[in-house]
Amino acid sequence: MADDGPRRDAALVALDWGTTTFRAWLLDDTGSVLDSVRTADGALTISGRSDSARVRALAFEEAFRRLCLTWLDEHPGVPVLCAGMAGSNHGWADAGYLDVPADLVELAEHLTVVPAGESVVHLVPGLRVDRPDPDVLRGEEVQLVGALAEVADGPATVVLPGTHSKWVRLDGTRVTGFTTAMTGELYGLLMRDSILARLATGEPGTAVTEAFTRGLDAEDARGEERGLAALLFTARPLALAGRLDPSEIADYVSGLLVGSEVRHMLRGTPAGVVALCGPPATEHRYRFALERGGASVRTVGEDAAARGLWGIALDAGLAVRPPTTSATTPPSNPARKDQPA
Amino acid sequence: MADDGPRRDAALVALDWGTTTFRAWLLDDTGSVLDSVRTADGALTISGRSDSARVRALAFEEAFRRLCLTWLDEHPGVPVLCAGMAGSNHGWADAGYLDVPADLVELAEHLTVVPAGESVVHLVPGLRVDRPDPDVLRGEEVQLVGALAEVADGPATVVLPGTHSKWVRLDGTRVTGFTTAMTGELYGLLMRDSILARLATGEPGTAVTEAFTRGLDAEDARGEERGLAALLFTARPLALAGRLDPSEIADYVSGLLVGSEVRHMLRGTPAGVVALCGPPATEHRYRFALERGGASVRTVGEDAAARGLWGIALDAGLAVRPPTTSATTPPSNPARKDQPA
Repeated sequence: MADDGPRRDAALVALDWGTTTFRAWLLDDTGSVLDSVRTADGALTISGRSDSARVRALAFEEAFRRLCLTWLDEHPGVPVLCAGMAGSNHGWADAGYLDVPADLVELAEHLTVVPAGESVVHLVPGLRVDRPDPDVLRGEEVQLVGALAEVADGPATVVLPGTHSKWVRLDGTRVTGFTTAMTGELYGLLMRDSILARLATGEPGTAVTEAFTRGLDAEDARGEERGLAALLFTARPLALAGRLDPSEIADYVSGLLVGSEVRHMLRGTPAGVVALCGPPATEHRYRFALERGGASVRTVGEDAAARGLWGIALDAGLAVRPPTTSATTPPSNPARKDQPA
Repeated sequence: MADDGPRRDAALVALDWGTTTFRAWLLDDTGSVLDSVRTADGALTISGRSDSARVRALAFEEAFRRLCLTWLDEHPGVPVLCAGMAGSNHGWADAGYLDVPADLVELAEHLTVVPAGESVVHLVPGLRVDRPDPDVLRGEEVQLVGALAEVADGPATVVLPGTHSKWVRLDGTRVTGFTTAMTGELYGLLMRDSILARLATGEPGTAVTEAFTRGLDAEDARGEERGLAALLFTARPLALAGRLDPSEIADYVSGLLVGSEVRHMLRGTPAGVVALCGPPATEHRYRFALERGGASVRTVGEDAAARGLWGIALDAGLAVRPPTTSATTPPSNPARKDQPA
């Protein structure tokens, strides 16, 4: 999807190479998107079952050159910045972790370099929190950088819903902690293989339906007293009694799970604005549940990853902000907003 | 497994025909077990995908006659009492439900009769509770009758752990309410197909291991604040950080799930004795978690179902207690203990 208008120079290939999805953007020297790609070549597929780091590295390099062939041909030597599971210890190369608390501006200072033909690829580290129950994230750190513009100075919370939802606490550009909830994965397991799946009909939805809010209500009223494993089962007797339509089971279960996640996690969240950063598929339901729980929600667009990668590239000197000669204000790296230019 | 000693007369074939398991006992006229059978011919297998009640009934009759062939040949016309999913609306015949609150002695007054060659089979109804979130049980009602001997008069709680754990509140022989938690099913889904299963090694255990109690501890310390979906995920970063051995993941997850169920459900449970009625595979862990939560636990043996079926057969007049001429005290139906003999 090349933009219209005069041809601008490509300044960066930005990759968000997750477990199941490969996303890539070709950015110009203002950080605007010239072209983008999204495929199912996730890191899990690429790394396969190989125990050899060298074999895996070659597989990632080959996949990268294949998936970005046109861009690399047209812009030989363009710098590449890559986040996500490609930087895990079973990925292209181990990009390591920054220990939390960590400032997001430090990401640019800890890139791991791997060669890929004429290009040099820079891998972004993940974040790690050391607690009695530790936690890790990888890939979400660039979304956090991209979300900073929506976050006030001082304590704030960013919620990234998904298979493994992340609740990240920030203080300015500093990540002070985070917690993962495997809400999306539980939902998938339940609606694919459980006794509830046998009763359910239709496709899982993404809208705030009556059945979804019914799940939220039930969780709110009885989650504290009965716990999640009991609430989930209620879908079955409700359906057997004809009080929940088979087509509503998935939405009801989604309401129970999202309700439980949001109710528990909002407890440890300072009041105020929550920045919500997720794909449209989960955005409506999380926004609804968060606002119902008393949070004031700001939505961060799906391109947060591309914006974050551009910001890190500027900080790392991989890309250079052009002199401001045009009317276009170049996007500044929000992670630097509190620092002298 | 015929008993030694003089041959006694068979008085009842007692069936607990569950979703995945068929259990049968041949009982003598004191309610003692002469022989028993346990197979994987669960009701789900027998009923198959047939929408025809007549086709299903024939399939159940055929399976019953095959599985109990020797008994029926040796004791033609022996009465048969059957509990479990065979009495569901997708089973042999719909045995209906008693609405809770209900007295367990009423079960014997609401049997559903189906013919099976020379025998007559009596199906036991299930129990149903009508709430904003309704609940049902089927099969556990005979275990409750069998457990009554372990339960004090007045308010009491019976816990039946399993794929779908049941927490039943009794007042004497009266069932006043119950709640189901799908703890065992969640455990199965997680350890078979989730991201945690990919890291885990070894077979799930049943003992109270250090990893199991670590799961209980974690749930106790942080379940309230973070919720179950977040706690479950912690197994992954713990394992990645080398702080949880891959062989310990299943036990740790079991501790989180059992801990969450017990902590929530004990809240609505009057203090005092809890009767625990489950297979040995779950008994140790639930006993440990319950006692840790302050409950005083009495274990009800695995034969509670056979004892309960015998008691209901006596109440229904299907079996007759012989005149007390021997030194053996015949087991009385505990559901009748507060009534004149």
